[in-house]
Amino acid sequence: MELELTTAKEIVETSQKYNLHAWTVQGSSKPLTMIGGEGIYFWDGEGKRYYDMSSQLVNLNIGYGNSKVIKAIQEQAERLAYSSPSFAIDVRSQLAKMVVELAPDNMGKVFFTLGGSDANENAIKIAKMVTGRYKIFSRYLSYHGSSYGAANLTGEPRRYTCEPGIPGFIKFFDPYVYRSPVPFADEEAASHYYLQQLRDQVIYEGRDAVAAIVVETITGSNGVIIPPKGYLNGIRRICDEFGIMMVCDEVMTGWGRTGEWFAINNFDVKPDIITFAKGITCGYAPIGGVIVSKEIASYFDDRFLNCGLTYSAHPLGCAAGIATIEYYQETGLIAQAKERGVLLGRILEDLKEKHACVGDVRYIGLFSAIELVKNKESKEPLVEFDHDPDKVMSKIIGTLCARGFFTYSHENTIMVAPPLIITEQELESAMAIMDDVLGEVDKSL
Amino acid sequence: MELELTTAKEIVETSQKYNLHAWTVQGSSKPLTMIGGEGIYFWDGEGKRYYDMSSQLVNLNIGYGNSKVIKAIQEQAERLAYSSPSFAIDVRSQLAKMVVELAPDNMGKVFFTLGGSDANENAIKIAKMVTGRYKIFSRYLSYHGSSYGAANLTGEPRRYTCEPGIPGFIKFFDPYVYRSPVPFADEEAASHYYLQQLRDQVIYEGRDAVAAIVVETITGSNGVIIPPKGYLNGIRRICDEFGIMMVCDEVMTGWGRTGEWFAINNFDVKPDIITFAKGITCGYAPIGGVIVSKEIASYFDDRFLNCGLTYSAHPLGCAAGIATIEYYQETGLIAQAKERGVLLGRILEDLKEKHACVGDVRYIGLFSAIELVKNKESKEPLVEFDHDPDKVMSKIIGTLCARGFFTYSHENTIMVAPPLIITEQELESAMAIMDDVLGEVDKSL
Ligand SMILES: Cc1ncc(COP(=O)(O)O)c(C=O)c1O
Ligand SMILES: Cc1ncc(COP(=O)(O)O)c(C=O)c1O
Repeated sequence: MELELTTAKEIVETSQKYNLHAWTVQGSSKPLTMIGGEGIYFWDGEGKRYYDMSSQLVNLNIGYGNSKVIKAIQEQAERLAYSSPSFAIDVRSQLAKMVVELAPDNMGKVFFTLGGSDANENAIKIAKMVTGRYKIFSRYLSYHGSSYGAANLTGEPRRYTCEPGIPGFIKFFDPYVYRSPVPFADEEAASHYYLQQLRDQVIYEGRDAVAAIVVETITGSNGVIIPPKGYLNGIRRICDEFGIMMVCDEVMTGWGRTGEWFAINNFDVKPDIITFAKGITCGYAPIGGVIVSKEIASYFDDRFLNCGLTYSAHPLGCAAGIATIEYYQETGLIAQAKERGVLLGRILEDLKEKHACVGDVRYIGLFSAIELVKNKESKEPLVEFDHDPDKVMSKIIGTLCARGFFTYSHENTIMVAPPLIITEQELESAMAIMDDVLGEVDKSL
Repeated sequence: MELELTTAKEIVETSQKYNLHAWTVQGSSKPLTMIGGEGIYFWDGEGKRYYDMSSQLVNLNIGYGNSKVIKAIQEQAERLAYSSPSFAIDVRSQLAKMVVELAPDNMGKVFFTLGGSDANENAIKIAKMVTGRYKIFSRYLSYHGSSYGAANLTGEPRRYTCEPGIPGFIKFFDPYVYRSPVPFADEEAASHYYLQQLRDQVIYEGRDAVAAIVVETITGSNGVIIPPKGYLNGIRRICDEFGIMMVCDEVMTGWGRTGEWFAINNFDVKPDIITFAKGITCGYAPIGGVIVSKEIASYFDDRFLNCGLTYSAHPLGCAAGIATIEYYQETGLIAQAKERGVLLGRILEDLKEKHACVGDVRYIGLFSAIELVKNKESKEPLVEFDHDPDKVMSKIIGTLCARGFFTYSHENTIMVAPPLIITEQELESAMAIMDDVLGEVDKSL
């Protein structure tokens, strides 16, 4: 293979001429270049180095340049780069076994997909097939992907391009306690409130009509919203009462992000279906999946599974997945993330204490968000929902980036989710940049 | 990475215990194993070797074990295995340039996706954004993928699990001349008939309502239906008349399959959007894309593109794509496929002549299908549409497979689409197996 483009300038100019880039206005901004990465850092075409404090799209849990995973991909490319998803191949069987064994003990089998969106697409299809129903519940402040099915699951504005919507996709409110319309005595009271609303809504939609309730176990891009105590157990109860499949989207939260293999392990609940992607290979090679309960698995013993894409269960993804899981196991990285999360939480609480612009901080493991406000008392958000004409948030992200702190924002929250391999010292140094920049935001209020 | 499963028995048993497999009943049949492959052959756990006469899912154009593409993946894994789709990186820029330069000359930019389904998902979203309309036309005998948007584009039964359908997705009839309800004097007459129906249907749906007409340039899995002369030009005219985006799905037909870079090069037509996947990397690493016209590209200069998945435009896919295209160029493989297609056509015509069960053969380049009937005169299909309770077709495929001829069927047609690297002798030897098996089908009539 001939690499033609050698300078950053050529790379950017060619990109601007020929690439349409995801989730952006094409003409307005020069895309950032990436030349290489190592550990928690990547560098651009000018040789500038960045702390990757969002792990790219909250997927690069093991950071850049992990030689074990690279080697697994290289060897698999040589052994067998492609085999259609219907074949049994060694790495596909082995990864399936590893995934099911790490999942909650009610789980039976895994359907490997290509990524997170199609994992959710297939979870919906499976729930519909198994229940014979077609209504699907999910929440307003959620992101489940951008293909039509996943986008219709998604509650936030990224859904709009996939409207008019699919019939039967219903939205309910999130347990977003920080912004609840009523005050709560405690977490249980909050759960009680949100669950009663949800149960009423299920009944209004039809007791026998709902195939699935889909939730991000912990809401990710929409601001790391952690469910109050008892909330997920309550969803389980509603699902049991009405014969609904409980689907936990762990695309972002799975594989160590919250200090557990799956975020659901932080709660005492067993869903019927778990979807995942991202952290299983950290993006080194694409793969995702749908883990289903033993009950669902046996349903398909004598029934056709109407699911699959050409690249589903890709051999390179399977090999990378095995190596990544082994790496998590050998290094104890997930337990370390939990511990490092304690430090991150302390730093975030300090920032909240110190900065007028910080309304709330939410964190678990190395998964956290900083919610910005104009006023701590009134909680008025720094920018209105889906309406930031002055690009206030992208300016803040731009300032962070210019100082070497790479991350992204969503509405009025900033994501902080570094690779799990980050050291205490790196975490402190990076967050010192955040401290500075928040100070500037304070001044602008 | 530790490979735990070494025997075929272990691989299959583990797979049956832990994997849900695509497009199949899980319990009924032992999945085939794949241990390795070389050239046009793969072998299973018993060491049995197969001619891969469908190139897996009509994607393995360069066959197994292509060292150039393997090396490109290995090197890219080392250099930079992951970078989120918004970054400019060398291989992403370079592949974009190569793709656009090989596409029809009205094309401006490419949006890289993860696979074929999400290429089509994004093509729809782009057409909707650009036109501000929401109705999407596609055909009954089509397969465009299995995520919700792509499945709702799909006309055939694989659509049903994604119903109730998305509002505004409208189906029209295919120019399936072999089974047309009226006889035609010639191809132009057929085109005239189908186009007039289509134009009427567009008007009935609303002159200003239709965002896109989506067609497989040449229908693939639904039986290699080649459009009659003038048909695609007529679609272009209808699109121009009503301001509709013409979208050609070249996921299966692109990258040499028909003896041209894109199937559309066989016709004198320029679509607004082309989607692709499969042959650009032959599945060695996942990538797909949406090529858009210069006009569409410039539309997004000052507008947000609401598209993207975590693994879109994956670096391994980009590197594999560059190497695959270079391989096509260096070897002249695509011109060779066209030539080899002449031989394949001759063999197919002989089979049709010889066998009572062969109603029709359709072929272009190394892309072909054999349509089976109970009766050549009445054209009664060997199995009814979406109804083969006695599994007649899977038995035929099973017999072929047992004799070392691997392919798949769809309704009453058998796909024949070997890797483009097949030699004349290999083609003749493989098709001799087909000849034998068709002889047995004849006897069963
Ligand atoms: C919770 C959640 N679900 C699904 C997805 C979609 O995954 P993918 O981008 O791999 O399709 C994402 C991606 O950010 C996500 O965060
Ligand atoms: C014409 C066509 N479009 C789209 C697709 C979907 O592509 P993928 O399986 O990569 O999602 C296919 C797959 O067979 C196809 O043949």
